[in-house]
Amino acid sequence: MSEHPHPFADLIGLTFDSAESGSSQCRVPVRPELLNPHGVVHGAVAYALADSGMGGALYTLLEKGESCATIEIKIVYLSSVREGGLVCNTRVVRKGSRVAVLESEVFEADRLVAKALGTYSIHSR
Amino acid sequence: MSEHPHPFADLIGLTFDSAESGSSQCRVPVRPELLNPHGVVHGAVAYALADSGMGGALYTLLEKGESCATIEIKIVYLSSVREGGLVCNTRVVRKGSRVAVLESEVFEADRLVAKALGTYSIHSR
Amino acid sequence: MSEHPHPFADLIGLTFDSAESGSSQCRVPVRPELLNPHGVVHGAVAYALADSGMGGALYTLLEKGESCATIEIKIVYLSSVREGGLVCNTRVVRKGSRVAVLESEVFEADRLVAKALGTYSIHSR
Amino acid sequence: MSEHPHPFADLIGLTFDSAESGSSQCRVPVRPELLNPHGVVHGAVAYALADSGMGGALYTLLEKGESCATIEIKIVYLSSVREGGLVCNTRVVRKGSRVAVLESEVFEADRLVAKALGTYSIHSR
Repeated sequence: MSEHPHPFADLIGLTFDSAESGSSQCRVPVRPELLNPHGVVHGAVAYALADSGMGGALYTLLEKGESCATIEIKIVYLSSVREGGLVCNTRVVRKGSRVAVLESEVFEADRLVAKALGTYSIHSR
Repeated sequence: MSEHPHPFADLIGLTFDSAESGSSQCRVPVRPELLNPHGVVHGAVAYALADSGMGGALYTLLEKGESCATIEIKIVYLSSVREGGLVCNTRVVRKGSRVAVLESEVFEADRLVAKALGTYSIHSR
Repeated sequence: MSEHPHPFADLIGLTFDSAESGSSQCRVPVRPELLNPHGVVHGAVAYALADSGMGGALYTLLEKGESCATIEIKIVYLSSVREGGLVCNTRVVRKGSRVAVLESEVFEADRLVAKALGTYSIHSR
Repeated sequence: MSEHPHPFADLIGLTFDSAESGSSQCRVPVRPELLNPHGVVHGAVAYALADSGMGGALYTLLEKGESCATIEIKIVYLSSVREGGLVCNTRVVRKGSRVAVLESEVFEADRLVAKALGTYSIHSR
């Protein structure tokens, strides 16, 4: 979805399915490098999906010359994941002129495994 | 600090300096693979430090046979990072029998770049 | 909705419309006592709706002899309110045996003015 | 500390001890009207202290003609309170030109009962 290189996305295997009209979908297939000592996917992977997905969703609503940055995100975990793949659906809840609010839901197959609520600042480059 | 393999920590280069008495310190050196398309360290790296650091700090207070899991974490960003290294100091704010509250501060050199406040559940294995 | 006295709800004028099957709706009419120095409804009023609404929604899913308590709530504000009334719709996102995740949306008429994501602990009395 | 009327503060009995140099202290004595059906102080009271305290602390750092508004606050509860009084200490963690990060600790006597981490937007009136 982006012409810009994204090294961290490449490192964890994160790719975008879509980003348009204030929404985005991105995913990470589970692989052994993403596990923590308990054998479950590290919480930072779901977080990376939420943070990347929020940026991707918000960019679709920005004007030329505007950029955005994460102010803060809260993520809550509903279930642990050992295999399969994580898919993250994000939408802009509200975009103001300087602050936007976004939410993400992370699924493994049909199971909701994490939910995030975040805010971004919007600024002119 | 741990005898258990931690593949995700290895993937991003996260290591622990210390974990004792309800506190921990862990770090990640900045390298190109950790950057986002803006050329700054992806927010998930500071998050990974907070989440890992909270787990590391809380484990030092658990009884034999107890385990813990992240309920939720909020992280707020104060400054972006392009180079150097991230160091995360974490402490247990309060440990109950079933829920613990922790906070982390992430620094690049002397600069506070992120702050996190999280909760963990504690359970018998 | 409750046979138990709730002094703080009475103080701010909070009443429940419904609480069943893991959802609740509660409301507060705006009146001068609820305003802050800017002439807008104090943020703690929307917060009180979210916190009370979450408790009300979760109680509908508890077994006899179980109780619950707020672990933490994050609330984000989308718009300020000067008059009218606040209505809060809450639902349980997931109820585990010991922790539940809930979300609330606070409206003034058709306008979403705040959104909250919280966690509760569940325990036997 | 303020020459402006604050009806909601009056309603719950909130007063400021101090507000200067990016910090503030405010308090609420416990009285029966602040209790929830469990007989403990409603969580919205500690929240009101944090939100009010953050506004009070941030205003001490604003320029003439600037105002601020809560973006979001997360509050976590460490202990319930049945009697005595709540005192809230707040400090600005970082003030940027458009966003500030603040944290509050709420005590009952020597006991830390809640902790909050929030963000505010800063704008010219």
